Amino acid sequence: MTELSLPRVLGADPAAAARAQAELDRKTKPQGSLGRLEELAVRLAGARGDRGLGALDAAAVVAAADHGYAVHGVSAFPQKVTAQMLGNFAAGGAGVAVMARHAGARLVVVDVGTAQAPAVPSVRSVRIAAGTRDATRGAAMSMSEVNAAITAGLDLAAELAGTGVDLVAAGEMGIANTTAASAVTAGLLSVEPEVVCGRGTGIDDKARARKVAVVERALAVNGIDARRPLAVLAAVGGLEIAFLVGLMVGGAAERMVVVLDGFVVGAAALVAQRLKPRVVDHLVASHLSPEPGHRLILESLELVPLLEWQLRLGEASGAVLVLPLLRQAVRVLVEMATFEGAGVSREHG
Amino acid sequence: MTELSLPRVLGADPAAAARAQAELDRKTKPQGSLGRLEELAVRLAGARGDRGLGALDAAAVVAAADHGYAVHGVSAFPQKVTAQMLGNFAAGGAGVAVMARHAGARLVVVDVGTAQAPAVPSVRSVRIAAGTRDATRGAAMSMSEVNAAITAGLDLAAELAGTGVDLVAAGEMGIANTTAASAVTAGLLSVEPEVVCGRGTGIDDKARARKVAVVERALAVNGIDARRPLAVLAAVGGLEIAFLVGLMVGGAAERMVVVLDGFVVGAAALVAQRLKPRVVDHLVASHLSPEPGHRLILESLELVPLLEWQLRLGEASGAVLVLPLLRQAVRVLVEMATFEGAGVSREHG
Repeated sequence: MTELSLPRVLGADPAAAARAQAELDRKTKPQGSLGRLEELAVRLAGARGDRGLGALDAAAVVAAADHGYAVHGVSAFPQKVTAQMLGNFAAGGAGVAVMARHAGARLVVVDVGTAQAPAVPSVRSVRIAAGTRDATRGAAMSMSEVNAAITAGLDLAAELAGTGVDLVAAGEMGIANTTAASAVTAGLLSVEPEVVCGRGTGIDDKARARKVAVVERALAVNGIDARRPLAVLAAVGGLEIAFLVGLMVGGAAERMVVVLDGFVVGAAALVAQRLKPRVVDHLVASHLSPEPGHRLILESLELVPLLEWQLRLGEASGAVLVLPLLRQAVRVLVEMATFEGAGVSREHG
Repeated sequence: MTELSLPRVLGADPAAAARAQAELDRKTKPQGSLGRLEELAVRLAGARGDRGLGALDAAAVVAAADHGYAVHGVSAFPQKVTAQMLGNFAAGGAGVAVMARHAGARLVVVDVGTAQAPAVPSVRSVRIAAGTRDATRGAAMSMSEVNAAITAGLDLAAELAGTGVDLVAAGEMGIANTTAASAVTAGLLSVEPEVVCGRGTGIDDKARARKVAVVERALAVNGIDARRPLAVLAAVGGLEIAFLVGLMVGGAAERMVVVLDGFVVGAAALVAQRLKPRVVDHLVASHLSPEPGHRLILESLELVPLLEWQLRLGEASGAVLVLPLLRQAVRVLVEMATFEGAGVSREHG
């Protein structure tokens, strides 16, 4: 069995965060008047610590995999779309490909376990299996598969850090993966599948009822214990979710900033936080999706999303969308004039 | 007296908007899954109409002026800060200067009427007066001054359109101008000053109580009639607010997109809408500020803000911040692959 070795995660550097806040308070603006932009600058400074903020060189990572859940008709799309979309990422036509190009982010697409391996040279293959097994009949993955997928994520984080990337926009692609995310979320937060499951790619009431029943069965069959996050992940999760857990823990260990996309990435963040609580200091929630489970996750992680735009595409699209906002937070911190430097009068009294 | 001649405003082009929505529905994504990013693309397409979306070449316009209200101690900063900040804009150290540089927006700073004209060559001067008069003792501006300020805004819009600018981020600077904006808002929406007035640059409860009393007196002394928007503007508004009214009406006439910053710009939008209702089709609300009157304005204009980030700096900073989001909406519309083009399967059934 593949052993799992997780790196040390230190969390935010409080001195770096305090220096950033003090610097912001000297800038030519009423104190606190840039609201969440200031909070972001402080959070990024704390997450980066002695690495410094730099230019926030970014990579958008899209982890793809297939799911045994798909046989239950829980998605609006057929399973072959997972592999087809890998071709679309590589050709530059997918949403995140367009947006990453314009945001100045490198796009890294990883096949963690699609059902049919696509012949797309620019997609990295770390295929652990040809998709997960049907979790309504036993564990979706073996613990060995989970450990291998997490390790692949850890490896990518270390590699990206080594090439100067200091921010990762985390995303996913996988038909039926909101079902896996719903099961992980319901399992770890001990809430009913009924309040977690949403419409995913746009399913109707009948398909959503099937989805709820599938998640209920998967949780019951596997005898879920919320205190054992890796066991929950193996039983009802997915290969790309496990990979993203590794990417987040590895990113945090490298003092990178990891920008979360939507619900499926959020489920991975929940697992990562249960393994290494300080990972959360390195996370930024880009947006709140209409998936009901996403709100539960962000509340549990105490992360406030930057946008509430009803985004539900996945692919890291929401995470890439907010990149310029994060970079502006850094530019304001670094480049704005101080009251003293600009000869501008301060507040009365 | 300066006569006012407002150009024709056609509003959104419904055919261009419908074409954009149809094109988005062919893209490789579940229908509607990019949420407000899709809504933005459709809105921008409608606003631009036959001009086409292009690259959204942008200018950030900061209109500055001083206010007779300042004598009542309604701001946390002394009046001389208005002129000092013009120097800070020109030197590149102010918040909006930093952000416009990184967003690829030209910065245009206009002195519409500061108390002490600053000697800053890169600031455009269209000085109508050395600030407004104290509105608690009669009209802040003559109708002739209002017309001149609006005309200067119209002229700038036409000039910018002529140099290829298709998007204006609208902003302002002026000590005590949230008091003017509060008075205009209370006057036009017929609401009590108590529910409109906020803390501006960060005043305490005592100063805020003074601000409410000042707005009440200004409205009473001038015998406000909500059906006469230009008279309300003249009586209790400000020179930069009048200029921004002209910029918005002129921008809409040129089929530009005008991105609103916060509360003071919102008050100008309210006046512009009362003069030419279709101006609103060309407006995008960048954010919701903590000023209570701002929410009332956006609700009245039926505009939903893109961010709720507690921004209250002004200077067009919020409007510049969202520029990359608007541009990504356009890139998605123009560059994303279609299901047919990319060979990706559509939804079942």
